[in-house]
Amino acid sequence: MPSKVSVGILGASGYGGAGLLRRLALHPHVEVTGVASRQFKGQRVSACWPQLVGGFSDLIFQDNDVVIQNCDVLFCATPHGATAPLVKQALDAGCKVIDLSADFRLSPDEYAHWYGEHPHPELFERAVYGLVELHRDELGGADLIANPGCNSTAAILALAPLAAHGLLGRDTVISNASGVSGAGRSPGLGLHYSELNENMKPYKVAGTHRHIAEIEASMGRAQHMGRQLKTHEAFDKPVVTLSPHLVPMTRGILATCHTRPEETDRPLSDESLLELYREFYEGEPLISVREDLPQTKAVYGGDRCILSVRYDERSGQVVAMAVIDNLGKGAAGQAVHNFNVMMGFEETLGLFTQGVWP
Amino acid sequence: MPSKVSVGILGASGYGGAGLLRRLALHPHVEVTGVASRQFKGQRVSACWPQLVGGFSDLIFQDNDVVIQNCDVLFCATPHGATAPLVKQALDAGCKVIDLSADFRLSPDEYAHWYGEHPHPELFERAVYGLVELHRDELGGADLIANPGCNSTAAILALAPLAAHGLLGRDTVISNASGVSGAGRSPGLGLHYSELNENMKPYKVAGTHRHIAEIEASMGRAQHMGRQLKTHEAFDKPVVTLSPHLVPMTRGILATCHTRPEETDRPLSDESLLELYREFYEGEPLISVREDLPQTKAVYGGDRCILSVRYDERSGQVVAMAVIDNLGKGAAGQAVHNFNVMMGFEETLGLFTQGVWP
Amino acid sequence: MPSKVSVGILGASGYGGAGLLRRLALHPHVEVTGVASRQFKGQRVSACWPQLVGGFSDLIFQDNDVVIQNCDVLFCATPHGATAPLVKQALDAGCKVIDLSADFRLSPDEYAHWYGEHPHPELFERAVYGLVELHRDELGGADLIANPGCNSTAAILALAPLAAHGLLGRDTVISNASGVSGAGRSPGLGLHYSELNENMKPYKVAGTHRHIAEIEASMGRAQHMGRQLKTHEAFDKPVVTLSPHLVPMTRGILATCHTRPEETDRPLSDESLLELYREFYEGEPLISVREDLPQTKAVYGGDRCILSVRYDERSGQVVAMAVIDNLGKGAAGQAVHNFNVMMGFEETLGLFTQGVWP
Amino acid sequence: MPSKVSVGILGASGYGGAGLLRRLALHPHVEVTGVASRQFKGQRVSACWPQLVGGFSDLIFQDNDVVIQNCDVLFCATPHGATAPLVKQALDAGCKVIDLSADFRLSPDEYAHWYGEHPHPELFERAVYGLVELHRDELGGADLIANPGCNSTAAILALAPLAAHGLLGRDTVISNASGVSGAGRSPGLGLHYSELNENMKPYKVAGTHRHIAEIEASMGRAQHMGRQLKTHEAFDKPVVTLSPHLVPMTRGILATCHTRPEETDRPLSDESLLELYREFYEGEPLISVREDLPQTKAVYGGDRCILSVRYDERSGQVVAMAVIDNLGKGAAGQAVHNFNVMMGFEETLGLFTQGVWP
Repeated sequence: MPSKVSVGILGASGYGGAGLLRRLALHPHVEVTGVASRQFKGQRVSACWPQLVGGFSDLIFQDNDVVIQNCDVLFCATPHGATAPLVKQALDAGCKVIDLSADFRLSPDEYAHWYGEHPHPELFERAVYGLVELHRDELGGADLIANPGCNSTAAILALAPLAAHGLLGRDTVISNASGVSGAGRSPGLGLHYSELNENMKPYKVAGTHRHIAEIEASMGRAQHMGRQLKTHEAFDKPVVTLSPHLVPMTRGILATCHTRPEETDRPLSDESLLELYREFYEGEPLISVREDLPQTKAVYGGDRCILSVRYDERSGQVVAMAVIDNLGKGAAGQAVHNFNVMMGFEETLGLFTQGVWP
Repeated sequence: MPSKVSVGILGASGYGGAGLLRRLALHPHVEVTGVASRQFKGQRVSACWPQLVGGFSDLIFQDNDVVIQNCDVLFCATPHGATAPLVKQALDAGCKVIDLSADFRLSPDEYAHWYGEHPHPELFERAVYGLVELHRDELGGADLIANPGCNSTAAILALAPLAAHGLLGRDTVISNASGVSGAGRSPGLGLHYSELNENMKPYKVAGTHRHIAEIEASMGRAQHMGRQLKTHEAFDKPVVTLSPHLVPMTRGILATCHTRPEETDRPLSDESLLELYREFYEGEPLISVREDLPQTKAVYGGDRCILSVRYDERSGQVVAMAVIDNLGKGAAGQAVHNFNVMMGFEETLGLFTQGVWP
Repeated sequence: MPSKVSVGILGASGYGGAGLLRRLALHPHVEVTGVASRQFKGQRVSACWPQLVGGFSDLIFQDNDVVIQNCDVLFCATPHGATAPLVKQALDAGCKVIDLSADFRLSPDEYAHWYGEHPHPELFERAVYGLVELHRDELGGADLIANPGCNSTAAILALAPLAAHGLLGRDTVISNASGVSGAGRSPGLGLHYSELNENMKPYKVAGTHRHIAEIEASMGRAQHMGRQLKTHEAFDKPVVTLSPHLVPMTRGILATCHTRPEETDRPLSDESLLELYREFYEGEPLISVREDLPQTKAVYGGDRCILSVRYDERSGQVVAMAVIDNLGKGAAGQAVHNFNVMMGFEETLGLFTQGVWP
Repeated sequence: MPSKVSVGILGASGYGGAGLLRRLALHPHVEVTGVASRQFKGQRVSACWPQLVGGFSDLIFQDNDVVIQNCDVLFCATPHGATAPLVKQALDAGCKVIDLSADFRLSPDEYAHWYGEHPHPELFERAVYGLVELHRDELGGADLIANPGCNSTAAILALAPLAAHGLLGRDTVISNASGVSGAGRSPGLGLHYSELNENMKPYKVAGTHRHIAEIEASMGRAQHMGRQLKTHEAFDKPVVTLSPHLVPMTRGILATCHTRPEETDRPLSDESLLELYREFYEGEPLISVREDLPQTKAVYGGDRCILSVRYDERSGQVVAMAVIDNLGKGAAGQAVHNFNVMMGFEETLGLFTQGVWP
């Protein structure tokens, strides 16, 4: 492997792109050779991002084509639907691709159900779902990695240990709270400061949020195989209820997940569940299982997931909680983690294992 | 009835007290004759509350005793546990009492379970649970009203129509999000600005939050009696799972409630559920059932509850949502509403039916 | 005077409009007979404003023309430049007008300098500058009132007592901080939640903010005439330096004003200056001069201005501070105050003299 | 020099300590050998700081004495007044010291004026004022570095180029806005979330903030010597007016500085001033002079200062603006920068040159 991998970023003027630049600038084995943005084309990175300085901030935003031609690995932080053709172009040009959009996260059938017709269904079989903790073995040889959705990441990490041990009940209720930056950088009344500040609201409740499909697929795989999962195998999947909420903060996702396990030999208690989680995630460099309840600020600006779990003796429900930074572990951090695993690098290179507090 | 009722407020240097002062100052039939505060005793109201002006802001904080002696109706915005003796003293002195603490919200048994021994259990039978929408008929003749908890208010209003129609399933999961002011005005690291800003976190999950008892009691009554409930009758109660969260905002509570009804003849859909809610709350001056999803900002600074409901066809869950201002409908606004019903006044006198937006 | 004045509102789907509706709904002598909005035409008020309820929230947004035809008094909360023709149309139709835009705040010359050519310069002589505390005598007979800008209101109220007593020095430096809602409800990257939260920034510094002209004109009048000012008389004016800042909060303006008085017989101290301010604003129903430093939260959602002043013995500078709610005293509250004075009503009808705290 | 320097941190349970740990954990030449905290003594770092993970987060908080005994370089993030004796103890033990408190920032006379009697005045002559950009030459050989105050840092960096070129006028007015974390981690009503959110307020205006002394001293030195300054030489100093404000955000300082230069041959304009600033700070690794106006978010979580400057032709005032993260460049980042210069390391080791956006 070369001492520096040439890396290109499409959609580099969005928040996903900013997160990739912040991390890849610190990566010892990466040279960012090109960045693309339709909106900022011809301008410098520093005109788009006042927080970035250093040599790479003098890069000029170019066309997608030029960026694809000049890289070994391509990160796509482009919109859903518009990304698949770019992925195809990059794969044809011999690039490896890490796709932050939703275009290759699902099975073809699920994609058709939630998003409609896919422009390049033939690529599905090359895609690996890039939740490292559940798919590490598949990622090493991959040339197309589908970076998970931010809500999905938190919910899956919170529920996977339960699913793997057969502890998901008939009803799994996920209450998800996420910061505003998850909705991207395009202005609109729904993201207008004065409308959102001091405002908490649900959105896309009752089975209408597309991240449900990712969560159910992961739960299905986890139920059958513990940690030895394949992205494209078909399994029975549980049905989950996802209630997403928008919270007046910029970053952070909290997934509070509820399920009532059926009869089980396993004695259920806070301690036994915490132990189960610690075992499940043992050795994971970016997962912390903590006894105290998690809070989003502890992962602000960082790439970790913090988990905790409780047993409600009154109702028989297990309450599993996960926090991530939606732009870190939920987007750019997870993408760079995937990159490291794909390339065989030390897994945390370029990542922020610590949060910014306060 | 006299043209002006003499009103006293204990605990007037807390947020509950501020809310009472803001409303009672506008009430045409009220004269605030005394305010008490241990911390600000001897100082003027305006030294404690920079937002208040007008004649009453020159009132001097006095002892509880003095305030009790000089009023017809007493509002207690004092801490749990410390309030019951003050209530007794006021009742003995011939005052009517509206108690914003938790001291008389539960049945004696429930109180013992969640809080421990009660200093004046003989008063329980005089207390009416002050959720006007469910207990209006009992409130007219009351001389002791227990003002509901803020989390309880939102959850009960969201779930009562379902309970009354037998639509609560085996598991009811309530995800509650509340602004920071609900925790009061006493400083602590957990309420320190720099620790809370950009921070969302669960607290007291898995059956440890005391508002559970209020919610379950109300659901039990609603299941049996529709809207004709008595505070102290005993019924079977459902068990609920409550997951409270702290949100980085000052005001507002959002309850997102999930339950999967058992087999029912009623066809379930968004429309049929909305219709059921509209009927249940028809004529209520402080309830709005809306088709769009509720958001806390719509009730900021005000005394309404906004509700909506959805049916998740995939999972069979009903998702019922309520927003209130925890210091308005969740505390001082509800207390003044109770006062109006108790005294036979027009129900919305002194109340803010509209929110402050943006 | 009729028991109810028919009132129309143009631009009622903006924040100025929301503030007017919130106040006029409570006004005993007002009936809102029409609301106009280009964007929400044909929809109900409640579709635009989730916080508003009551009969008037069922009003349908109409054309400007229809609204103008059906009112005695018209409030224009429409954009700068687009408003003057509407004002002319309304005046021609016999309405009285309160204009929240900048179209009639300046003298013709100043307008030309800061904004360009005016479409209806002939109307300038009918316009009165609606800062009630300085222009009350002119407002009674007016049929066109120019409601002051929000930044201007805070700065003028902070500096007027100094100007009137000849205490403005050669350099007057105004550091202004304002909440985001002052920029209106139209989305844009500069008002996008994720870009503004946790972000404080200057804008239009160094003589480029148009509110400078209002401030200088008021200072000039105050220097010559104390409180007996006429809108259109010409005077020498001081030059001020205005540094506006955007603050990550929804509401509130803080003006911190600095000036070093020339030699004066008046002994300068905190106490003497506070006394001077108290005298200057004696009897004003919406002004509070306080000894402690002002804070924006104390006027949140309300229509008061709180002032304080200090003398810096080290540097010889007087520091005068004012806080208002930019949408209250800085916009809709001041407009309704102007309406009351114009119509001869009790001055605080429909206004919120108290703030929402916390 | 050894491959790893043993470093101790006193006051490691405060925000300054958290910032030091976050940076030193990444520093290739540092081993953190001890952390002290009175409040958390005997507990692990991870019990105090949920955002920190890795080997060092298992360190146990110890006594000051133990930490001092086991390090080569000591960082003191302890309170003003309590720190000087610890500094003496550490110097006597042969440690080099970087002091984040105010105990050695001033000259003995200034210290006496602003703080009172100093317990160890004999140490003043060993202390160097650690604003690297102005004192780099003195820092290499230092064994005691006084890390500047956060407000001072922003104001000095904004004004130094003007002072060095004789462009400070008779009156210099500094409007300072800072995030809440600058007030530390000790709870109090003034830092209570519900009291501060949506609240902007001035504090310690009119010559009462102690950072004034640092600013005036630095301006005095800059006026006489350009960048060749000595900490303890005496010079005439200008008098400045500092108006500090508290802003509802966690991190960030913005200094907006105003001064009207006396007659000068230098043509004043935005361009000429920007050029002057670029020259003054040429080659500085942590200073960016930008044409657009600075904003605090651009340095959130980072260690840079961004500057810009404008000329107001109307008033003749120069407006110079600086933003820093109060806990980065304003505290821990500057301390580690000082450490690097003191030890002869590459200057940005362990530092965050980029901010966290959004």
